[in-house]
Amino acid sequence: MTTHSIHTDQIIRLALAEDIGTGDVTTSSVVPGGKTIEGQLKAKEGGIVCGLQVAARVFAMLDDGIRFEAHCNDGDKVEPGQLLAVISGLAQGILTGERVALNFLQRLSGIATKANSYAARVHGTGAVVTDTRKTTPGMRYLEKYAVKTGGASNHRMSLADGILIKDNHIRAAGSIAEAVKLARKHAPRMLKVEVETETLDDVREALAAGADIIMLDNMDIATMTEAVRTIGGKALVEASGNMDQRDIREVALTGVDMISVGALSHSVQALDISLKFMEHPSL
Amino acid sequence: MTTHSIHTDQIIRLALAEDIGTGDVTTSSVVPGGKTIEGQLKAKEGGIVCGLQVAARVFAMLDDGIRFEAHCNDGDKVEPGQLLAVISGLAQGILTGERVALNFLQRLSGIATKANSYAARVHGTGAVVTDTRKTTPGMRYLEKYAVKTGGASNHRMSLADGILIKDNHIRAAGSIAEAVKLARKHAPRMLKVEVETETLDDVREALAAGADIIMLDNMDIATMTEAVRTIGGKALVEASGNMDQRDIREVALTGVDMISVGALSHSVQALDISLKFMEHPSL
Amino acid sequence: MTTHSIHTDQIIRLALAEDIGTGDVTTSSVVPGGKTIEGQLKAKEGGIVCGLQVAARVFAMLDDGIRFEAHCNDGDKVEPGQLLAVISGLAQGILTGERVALNFLQRLSGIATKANSYAARVHGTGAVVTDTRKTTPGMRYLEKYAVKTGGASNHRMSLADGILIKDNHIRAAGSIAEAVKLARKHAPRMLKVEVETETLDDVREALAAGADIIMLDNMDIATMTEAVRTIGGKALVEASGNMDQRDIREVALTGVDMISVGALSHSVQALDISLKFMEHPSL
Amino acid sequence: MTTHSIHTDQIIRLALAEDIGTGDVTTSSVVPGGKTIEGQLKAKEGGIVCGLQVAARVFAMLDDGIRFEAHCNDGDKVEPGQLLAVISGLAQGILTGERVALNFLQRLSGIATKANSYAARVHGTGAVVTDTRKTTPGMRYLEKYAVKTGGASNHRMSLADGILIKDNHIRAAGSIAEAVKLARKHAPRMLKVEVETETLDDVREALAAGADIIMLDNMDIATMTEAVRTIGGKALVEASGNMDQRDIREVALTGVDMISVGALSHSVQALDISLKFMEHPSL
Amino acid sequence: MTTHSIHTDQIIRLALAEDIGTGDVTTSSVVPGGKTIEGQLKAKEGGIVCGLQVAARVFAMLDDGIRFEAHCNDGDKVEPGQLLAVISGLAQGILTGERVALNFLQRLSGIATKANSYAARVHGTGAVVTDTRKTTPGMRYLEKYAVKTGGASNHRMSLADGILIKDNHIRAAGSIAEAVKLARKHAPRMLKVEVETETLDDVREALAAGADIIMLDNMDIATMTEAVRTIGGKALVEASGNMDQRDIREVALTGVDMISVGALSHSVQALDISLKFMEHPSL
Amino acid sequence: MTTHSIHTDQIIRLALAEDIGTGDVTTSSVVPGGKTIEGQLKAKEGGIVCGLQVAARVFAMLDDGIRFEAHCNDGDKVEPGQLLAVISGLAQGILTGERVALNFLQRLSGIATKANSYAARVHGTGAVVTDTRKTTPGMRYLEKYAVKTGGASNHRMSLADGILIKDNHIRAAGSIAEAVKLARKHAPRMLKVEVETETLDDVREALAAGADIIMLDNMDIATMTEAVRTIGGKALVEASGNMDQRDIREVALTGVDMISVGALSHSVQALDISLKFMEHPSL
Repeated sequence: MTTHSIHTDQIIRLALAEDIGTGDVTTSSVVPGGKTIEGQLKAKEGGIVCGLQVAARVFAMLDDGIRFEAHCNDGDKVEPGQLLAVISGLAQGILTGERVALNFLQRLSGIATKANSYAARVHGTGAVVTDTRKTTPGMRYLEKYAVKTGGASNHRMSLADGILIKDNHIRAAGSIAEAVKLARKHAPRMLKVEVETETLDDVREALAAGADIIMLDNMDIATMTEAVRTIGGKALVEASGNMDQRDIREVALTGVDMISVGALSHSVQALDISLKFMEHPSL
Repeated sequence: MTTHSIHTDQIIRLALAEDIGTGDVTTSSVVPGGKTIEGQLKAKEGGIVCGLQVAARVFAMLDDGIRFEAHCNDGDKVEPGQLLAVISGLAQGILTGERVALNFLQRLSGIATKANSYAARVHGTGAVVTDTRKTTPGMRYLEKYAVKTGGASNHRMSLADGILIKDNHIRAAGSIAEAVKLARKHAPRMLKVEVETETLDDVREALAAGADIIMLDNMDIATMTEAVRTIGGKALVEASGNMDQRDIREVALTGVDMISVGALSHSVQALDISLKFMEHPSL
Repeated sequence: MTTHSIHTDQIIRLALAEDIGTGDVTTSSVVPGGKTIEGQLKAKEGGIVCGLQVAARVFAMLDDGIRFEAHCNDGDKVEPGQLLAVISGLAQGILTGERVALNFLQRLSGIATKANSYAARVHGTGAVVTDTRKTTPGMRYLEKYAVKTGGASNHRMSLADGILIKDNHIRAAGSIAEAVKLARKHAPRMLKVEVETETLDDVREALAAGADIIMLDNMDIATMTEAVRTIGGKALVEASGNMDQRDIREVALTGVDMISVGALSHSVQALDISLKFMEHPSL
Repeated sequence: MTTHSIHTDQIIRLALAEDIGTGDVTTSSVVPGGKTIEGQLKAKEGGIVCGLQVAARVFAMLDDGIRFEAHCNDGDKVEPGQLLAVISGLAQGILTGERVALNFLQRLSGIATKANSYAARVHGTGAVVTDTRKTTPGMRYLEKYAVKTGGASNHRMSLADGILIKDNHIRAAGSIAEAVKLARKHAPRMLKVEVETETLDDVREALAAGADIIMLDNMDIATMTEAVRTIGGKALVEASGNMDQRDIREVALTGVDMISVGALSHSVQALDISLKFMEHPSL
Repeated sequence: MTTHSIHTDQIIRLALAEDIGTGDVTTSSVVPGGKTIEGQLKAKEGGIVCGLQVAARVFAMLDDGIRFEAHCNDGDKVEPGQLLAVISGLAQGILTGERVALNFLQRLSGIATKANSYAARVHGTGAVVTDTRKTTPGMRYLEKYAVKTGGASNHRMSLADGILIKDNHIRAAGSIAEAVKLARKHAPRMLKVEVETETLDDVREALAAGADIIMLDNMDIATMTEAVRTIGGKALVEASGNMDQRDIREVALTGVDMISVGALSHSVQALDISLKFMEHPSL
Repeated sequence: MTTHSIHTDQIIRLALAEDIGTGDVTTSSVVPGGKTIEGQLKAKEGGIVCGLQVAARVFAMLDDGIRFEAHCNDGDKVEPGQLLAVISGLAQGILTGERVALNFLQRLSGIATKANSYAARVHGTGAVVTDTRKTTPGMRYLEKYAVKTGGASNHRMSLADGILIKDNHIRAAGSIAEAVKLARKHAPRMLKVEVETETLDDVREALAAGADIIMLDNMDIATMTEAVRTIGGKALVEASGNMDQRDIREVALTGVDMISVGALSHSVQALDISLKFMEHPSL
């Protein structure tokens, strides 16, 4: 996965820097330099694993002699107690990197697990669940990667790869029609234009303006159903607004194409994963 | 707060870079360069607000002419609907920075709110709730700041400012006594030595070795009570291990000094905060 | 222009670092620290000026007391001899920054001038001229900004904000239809899908696959005309391939929507601009 | 070439970052992770090739398993259609890096080709053609390397490695004599002192002041001839000023030692080079 | 030594960048690219060697084909003329890196040698010699590493890993008692609290406040002796203040636990070490 | 001093980062956020002060509201007890930055003082004392600035701004004549060529090869005298080799132009400077 490291090395380096500070005083004082160990990375609860390569990279940055042998792949559904990977090599680097590796792995697996559960709820409806830009600062790329790993879809990665005309943009431009016209004129040609709407009138105006995607923001089921009927396939339709507190299967059955869920990344339960070291390593 | 910016500018810059990418195509296409707006930052649910300075800094990095007028302080308990700040200035910078500012503010307020609730549960017991190193990569400093803002305490900031001898360190050194001796000899003199224990035997060995702090890992209430009695004030005592799933007041009442809770930072609900723009800004 | 500095400060800093090296030995040896000067930035040939803010930023980075008073705006058509800006302040910073400021200004104005001339050639045809990713390393954002300043349009900014399925992608996927299907499934929903075609058969296949944009690569006028007719408005059409060596008005008249020209950024004549200092500065 | 990477890694990383943005969505969506390809880098027009190591480094940064087998060396004169290198390995990294690698290679080869043509024009005259500081921001080191690869010479790399007293320095110091005296006194001892002159009086004054190099700025052939005669070998002589618009052989025959040409780097035609992939790779 | 590189790569990179600037013009002009050499790193005076890994890393950064074969270890006592390491490989990288490698090695060995001499003076007294934060900017980690290598101990690495309440902190808090109370309340629990004292009254107040460590600043031997007696083992005791100008054995014999010496890092004699190349390398 | 900050901000930032680590726990725990203080920076011994702007910058980076009022200038000779500057503002930033500011100021003043003493010794002889590249990693620019501030001269700043052909370069090229020829041909034209010599034969060969500067390495006074006579003003002459252990006035009187002294930067005594806070600040 070649572009992975470009995006992840910077945050891994930052995470190691902030955790190691001026040095792991415990390990360097107590653990002999040449001692080797072997540890098992295990899921302590069930879910979708995500971030194994990132965890491997954490250890490799500290000591490229550490061996990280994955026993499953990102995206695999794992059971409580299942072995995820075996890590072996010099004890100092492994002990120093352990917490940072787990911090990545647990959060990404938590997101993938949550994305997987949301995707399952809309299965067979024709709608997909997508993430939002409500990600943890510095973790954008990895959190979006985890969403996809879990089986949901990505919305915009950044403000540069999608035109999403909201409330304030419309007010600044004067009208939906004018905002769409300006976007078509000035923005790169390869981007679709999405318009946020709050009422059926907005929907009709966005449709007339030629929006590629129409977002239905905080609408009830009846209004959504009517909006989907009005749009009639002439634009993609996205449902949005506190979707973690609604019955998203019901939302999906209105016929929308996408349901965006901020909680996929902004409110996440870490997946419980542990690294246990063996009494008698096989090294 | 002078040292704040040294720690936060890097992650703010990273967050802006990943969110803006090659440019906010919507805003730059649709919003005229000279247009000004005024927005209100409001809590949509109750909690402890945290991160106002960080949010202000996000906007300042984009356009130092943006005015951020805080109406409350980090650590304040806010009600649903309460005004947190008023933001005014050129529309382009404000719209481009909105999401990143909220991503910081909502997560930090979520953590402060959670920390506050945990701190309340042990109120009056003599025990304090502390965080752990289970923070989101890149957010260590800010997440620990939010924990303190919420009224809980900080454990180690990094591997450099505390000696915590765990299972594997003990095994590498041969015994608790030997590990403590090595730490005292090689680590900087200003750090306390903490030893992780799983049994009462471990506790007695740590105490004999002269540990400054003894961590009771995953013990039941009865064992903890006995451990506290055994230690008898000769070392500080920390309770640890899945504390988010236990009755921490009951834990506190065993007489421990600290209860460390990983979930304070690894599993957080963002606090719902919105930025709404005014029809008729007063600018 | 709020997001400007995020993209440009890094390359300005790099340019200053590589030009100043360990210090401007001439200026620091010969020019007294307190001496002030005033200089006039003038066009020595006609064209479209671009990069004034970047030039101002170069001086501000060296000494934020330097005053840069612009006498025209980016995008203005200027005559030979026309005054662009007046720069005044301490001589040391101005002399040290002069060359870097001019290097930016001359290249960006050269690109804007070239883009303007290409845009003029297709005026009234309904087609727009766009740039490509054939930009100078490190200068992507600024060169694309100059293209727009000159009156042409931007194609993708990066590999992240547009799906362009080329020859090798098609071969890897097995067919145009399969490639488009994979892109729709895996890529973010807000991006259009463009397919590169070399024959009319390719065009028909891309159309059937539902491409949003079809690129006609290196086709002659007759084939292009037929392709445009075949597509019939069901997708946007882009003409590409050595367009700097062809009559692009003739290309535009085939009815294509976009004509992409790599030479807009890869082969550029710097616009001649000078900075002359006054005998009797008015300071 | 050991110091190469210190100078080039930063600009390569910047170029990859700006081109890849949040990820190559086309390649990651359409091209299977394990697929391998093999491509041929070929000159489409004749010239001097330059930048092969840089191109190789681009691919290595993305995926150090990519094999880059050069079939010629930097500085070689190549014919249209000539094979420059064979690139093989995992398709994803190769396709993602292709454009950035070509952007470097085409620009550097364009500069080397231009430098070569200028060097040829003064062949046998005793004069050398040199570059200037009019390089593209961020590309200083590489563009100067390309000039040398093409057979011309380097003038100063930066403001730190040569004292060049211009018009404004002279005015600030009071006189040529005073400026040279100050430079000799304050600047590092290992640098030569060059003085820019516009008239024969200036030349005489610079000579009297003991300049090591005298630059003749924008002089006609007769004045240059006289200046060279006046200097009589007591200083090196450099001709300068719009040399791309003059007959530089005629300039060289006046007896000057160096002719500096800004257009070597500020106005360059990219050399046409393509990367084509094989139907049946030999992998 | 796994965490070593995290701390040292940044300063090594900075040192190489400032020394190489735009390129080693001598070596690249005069030494053929393919030429190999072999050099011997030798101590020219006796002392404690420190920094061999850093020196090896300098060369590896320039050319990872350079072979650095250490003939002793950091911390070894070496004699004048003793061989420290053999360096072999391509001449260009070795010659370019020579000075930077020696600058690290000589300074670190100078510090280790000085630390060793101070440690020797207090041998057998029960006191240890420690460093301070008076290190050279950018060299904190390495200079503290050298102090330990020489046999002395480390005080705080940074302001984050130890609470040291000085004069001004006390004044700001109102009293020693209040300052200690605030520190216990707000600072991380794993840090000891040290209080700086100037009089016996201060000592008593610090002791009453429960300080973990009491610093005796600039006291004479009699006062120190009395202070140690007063403290009576209830806190660690540190002697401080111009200790390089005093008889530190006499200080040690007062019974203090630590003697901190700023001159260990702020006033250092480089150890004389040379790199000599062989007439007939064995390569 | 405009180019100052470009060179110094990086090392100041690194110094602050390594000293502050995850935060100044003492100050932030004990000192109230709004408290102001005023301190006096005083010399505790006599010498040449250097680094006042750097010290001011340290505080400004932490809190740009801190006021730094210099009472003398870099290069001034100061007496024991003399007031150098008054620093006032919020206590937190001042206390956090104090040590780093002093670390810069004391080292740079120590170097300036040493340089001044060496310069005084050769006063009136026509020779100048110069520094070398034996500087502390990361401090090159500042240490060379201190040397000049003290009244001595700068040799090369880096490997890029001077050609110094040493022993190994000569061996690689085959002879002094060949090495000089290669340097003249390949290196930038504005650099002088210096050749290191160990014998009078070497001197004659260097002279015949047309060296601009001839370095006499480790010669005794008689040989130096003879070398100077042989050179007869046709090249500059530099004396080098353990000059801190010789009578450099005697060396100067041989008629050499420069005497380079590595110990100016590699073995330095910090100048004793203190920052004392006032009981009753005038704020």
